[in-house]
Amino acid sequence: MKKATAFAPASVANVAVGFDTLGYANAAWGDRVTAVRTSALGVKVVSITDFSGKPLPFDLPKDHLKNTAAVGVASLLEHTQADFGLELTIEKGIALGSGLGGSAASAVAGVFAANALLPSPLKKIELLKFCLAGEKVASGAAHADNVAPSLMGGLTLVESLEPLVIQTLPLPKIWTLSLREHVEVKTEQARAILKKEMTLQESVIAQARMGAFVTGCFKNDLATLARVMKDDVIEPQRCHLIPHFLELKKAALAGGALCFSISGSGPAVFAWFDSKLSAAKVQDELADVLTKKRIAFDSAIGEIDRNGAKLV
Amino acid sequence: MKKATAFAPASVANVAVGFDTLGYANAAWGDRVTAVRTSALGVKVVSITDFSGKPLPFDLPKDHLKNTAAVGVASLLEHTQADFGLELTIEKGIALGSGLGGSAASAVAGVFAANALLPSPLKKIELLKFCLAGEKVASGAAHADNVAPSLMGGLTLVESLEPLVIQTLPLPKIWTLSLREHVEVKTEQARAILKKEMTLQESVIAQARMGAFVTGCFKNDLATLARVMKDDVIEPQRCHLIPHFLELKKAALAGGALCFSISGSGPAVFAWFDSKLSAAKVQDELADVLTKKRIAFDSAIGEIDRNGAKLV
Repeated sequence: MKKATAFAPASVANVAVGFDTLGYANAAWGDRVTAVRTSALGVKVVSITDFSGKPLPFDLPKDHLKNTAAVGVASLLEHTQADFGLELTIEKGIALGSGLGGSAASAVAGVFAANALLPSPLKKIELLKFCLAGEKVASGAAHADNVAPSLMGGLTLVESLEPLVIQTLPLPKIWTLSLREHVEVKTEQARAILKKEMTLQESVIAQARMGAFVTGCFKNDLATLARVMKDDVIEPQRCHLIPHFLELKKAALAGGALCFSISGSGPAVFAWFDSKLSAAKVQDELADVLTKKRIAFDSAIGEIDRNGAKLV
Repeated sequence: MKKATAFAPASVANVAVGFDTLGYANAAWGDRVTAVRTSALGVKVVSITDFSGKPLPFDLPKDHLKNTAAVGVASLLEHTQADFGLELTIEKGIALGSGLGGSAASAVAGVFAANALLPSPLKKIELLKFCLAGEKVASGAAHADNVAPSLMGGLTLVESLEPLVIQTLPLPKIWTLSLREHVEVKTEQARAILKKEMTLQESVIAQARMGAFVTGCFKNDLATLARVMKDDVIEPQRCHLIPHFLELKKAALAGGALCFSISGSGPAVFAWFDSKLSAAKVQDELADVLTKKRIAFDSAIGEIDRNGAKLV
């Protein structure tokens, strides 16, 4: 094979109860990367466009030392001592600074496509560290809560970064609503505003909720999920970055959402529902709120994506 | 019925990964309470002894406003508008300040015995709040991480205190070793020395470990449990209260323990093993360490108790 194209889904990180650890794959959005073998060594980004080949409304670096896909792919080629190089064509379906794991998805799609061109491709889970190396150039620090679900699919928990261990949780039977206002929140900024400390009591509550959340996933116990999918620490510090967040949240919970919180560092938000109908109703209500305020957005209803990265 | 006797097991709280939330029942020790109906209203503590009827080597209040069993029983009688009183005979198998949930076990045994004498006894789980009311007078604050496992048996997670919600986790197939040096650690003191804040990073690690711990319990995945049953925050602040803690821990882990940490606020410690043989070997090794240092102790090997409180 000389050429491979991979799709990697967007991802919702943090998931209200697992800051920097939980994430799930959301295939309503995603990035696509085509890798073409070259005899020259090294990785080169040929183009970055949207899915229709048009220029993006935001700037992403093509520099092979700054582009998340290129850095991830280069680390894979180096590890496997590949005797060839790759040219990458990147198609972005995830906007910059949307809180939907766009930098992670590009890295994952790139690494997954490149892996298909290796003489002895690695297993999916073995690709995680190369995806993480790519993600790191975008976020400044290694966080696997987006790359893990984008690569593996499903709902993942980053047990630890050193060593890198991921747990894949059973999926509760829920419908997701994701909504992204067309404003940009810089991840670094959203991280910089966070207090570096929390009280012991806050941490105890967060730990208990995490434990109950995992229990709820294993038991498909939606009542438990609804009780514990709350974030008293991170969300209040960040929600002012998202116009009308509290109004949207109130409407979603009143409409039957099991939970409503920020996707990653925002501005995307997510809600879980026990039925598609409730999700659709709330989707309409939130659309009304934002339309009246003349804020552009897009939203999607779906199930948690089980596939993660795939060749297309 | 005019008279009922209940046994409530000791409990190991915190369990390395769940400060103030996780606990499991340990029937190697326990308290026994006999309740006898009286026509006079109110609750009276008649005697507090060891299991052979001998005086205790430590002081516990018989005052009905300060004794955990009496307070718990009184709250149950008040709630059910009982038209009788109770005399309580308390037999302690759990030493004061041992970190094995002695105050909780007395409250649980008392409430469980009293419940059996009601015209319409409540369900076990409904007794939790009365046990908690009793425990509160001993510890100053309501913590359910001892009363929940002592009452319900098994491995419990206090999802929240307000409202009081308990999750019972599946039991991994492990053997437990518990060891108690004969020194007293006052719970209030062990709590007072704790820093009131932790870093966001410490909390993220603790949350991830809790999530992976629950996953490990559901999957009976002992390798995961061994990786994550660690406490970098509370244990280092408290372990100096327990003579030779680090030496014991080193020996236990070298001997194959999956984990080793403090039971509650100590001085009791616990370890988990994948076989009874490993547990027995480590029990001998720890005994050697403490015998050489002329420190009195007792220890027990067993499985997590599934029953919790029971009539005897």
